Amino acid sequence: MRNIKLILEYDGTKYSGWQKQKNSVTVQGTIEKAIEAITKESVELIGCSRTDSGVHAKGYTANFFTNSKIPIERFYIAINAKLPEDIVILSSEEVPEDFHSRFNCIGKTYCYSVLNRVSYPAMYRNYLYHVPRKLSIDEMKKAAESFVGTYDFNAFRNLGTEVASTVRTIHRIEVEEHGDIINILVTGDGFLYNMVRIIAGTLVEVGLGQKRSDQIKVILESKDRNRAGKTAPARGLSLDKVYY
Amino acid sequence: MRNIKLILEYDGTKYSGWQKQKNSVTVQGTIEKAIEAITKESVELIGCSRTDSGVHAKGYTANFFTNSKIPIERFYIAINAKLPEDIVILSSEEVPEDFHSRFNCIGKTYCYSVLNRVSYPAMYRNYLYHVPRKLSIDEMKKAAESFVGTYDFNAFRNLGTEVASTVRTIHRIEVEEHGDIINILVTGDGFLYNMVRIIAGTLVEVGLGQKRSDQIKVILESKDRNRAGKTAPARGLSLDKVYY
Repeated sequence: MRNIKLILEYDGTKYSGWQKQKNSVTVQGTIEKAIEAITKESVELIGCSRTDSGVHAKGYTANFFTNSKIPIERFYIAINAKLPEDIVILSSEEVPEDFHSRFNCIGKTYCYSVLNRVSYPAMYRNYLYHVPRKLSIDEMKKAAESFVGTYDFNAFRNLGTEVASTVRTIHRIEVEEHGDIINILVTGDGFLYNMVRIIAGTLVEVGLGQKRSDQIKVILESKDRNRAGKTAPARGLSLDKVYY
Repeated sequence: MRNIKLILEYDGTKYSGWQKQKNSVTVQGTIEKAIEAITKESVELIGCSRTDSGVHAKGYTANFFTNSKIPIERFYIAINAKLPEDIVILSSEEVPEDFHSRFNCIGKTYCYSVLNRVSYPAMYRNYLYHVPRKLSIDEMKKAAESFVGTYDFNAFRNLGTEVASTVRTIHRIEVEEHGDIINILVTGDGFLYNMVRIIAGTLVEVGLGQKRSDQIKVILESKDRNRAGKTAPARGLSLDKVYY
């Protein structure tokens, strides 16, 4: 069988997250139906991670097996013709049979976007977390540095799937200002449930002066979820890149 | 009476443009209702320009007269509480009685956004014109320079409101690349009906090699609408700044 790797973008606003569920419209379920419509086969699409309801992706990776003879360079165009406008396949590639979108993933970059101004956003409102009070970007940058390294991130996860270990490595965090939009870019080897959203929520609390930048290490060491910041809203989050 | 100047942002996707119409939901009509709900007066909101259905604004300017005693710094917050999520007032300011949003306007900056990649956009799709074939940005930049100056722009307007003169001055056009997004920023003293969208459509045709960059001056001189490019779609356009 052929193993097809897809890179895709989606606007998660109207979806109950990535993972297929009964009685809910999900990204996985929607793409599987589109692939089934063109291959006439039953398909299981393997995704690189579960994203929550309302979370977006610009470079999500997924793969599936098929006996279809459709030429590889035509595959994504054929699937796109069956997809709604808020999901799009950017590329399709044939990969070795042992390639697995989740197990082979060695890292990801997420982008969390904050709008920092008094008035709520009218444009781009499904992609931004609105913070009306002025944030100190310098303090947020200092705090962000404290996350870089290998730590037990138990304080920065919500209960979801059970995991063997809560130790993860963050390679890089950047806090970028573009006018009144602040992008928090986080690259790491793997992420716990809601980890990026809790990091973003904690950095916002630092920016508001509700937490100090030098408290991050202490919160990490405590492994206590109650000491970290709130989980920032889903709509500000986007999975930008996946590494293999 | 007090004359109140508002600066506002809106996502034009769901509106039949700025100007009030019977049986259509418009931006002007929606904001007037919100102001009337808080002032309990009948209000006419004077806008800086008519924008078409689907066109957005990040810095639209409007003004209205009121006897309301609401403190000026609270005005926009009170109006926002009555507005839907796709319209937001960014600031309110008390101005002299003779200030008029349209007549006093001395210039505007529009931004036209193109997504240049094979696949259609899933994210930001209401704010982008999708061009699947590769554009030559260098040719577009060369062509853009030809628009700068004072010209009769009759070839670059569609029939709309009657105007006394079709001569306008463009101060500046920039073609900026941000990954696969291309922003065309146009600043001028005034714009004819659909002028920015026809300039954008023409620049795209130059980028695709369907027109040459050195043809712009000839098209301007011809004053013939049929020689310019197609009107680019409304969703790519945003009114970014208004000058007084």
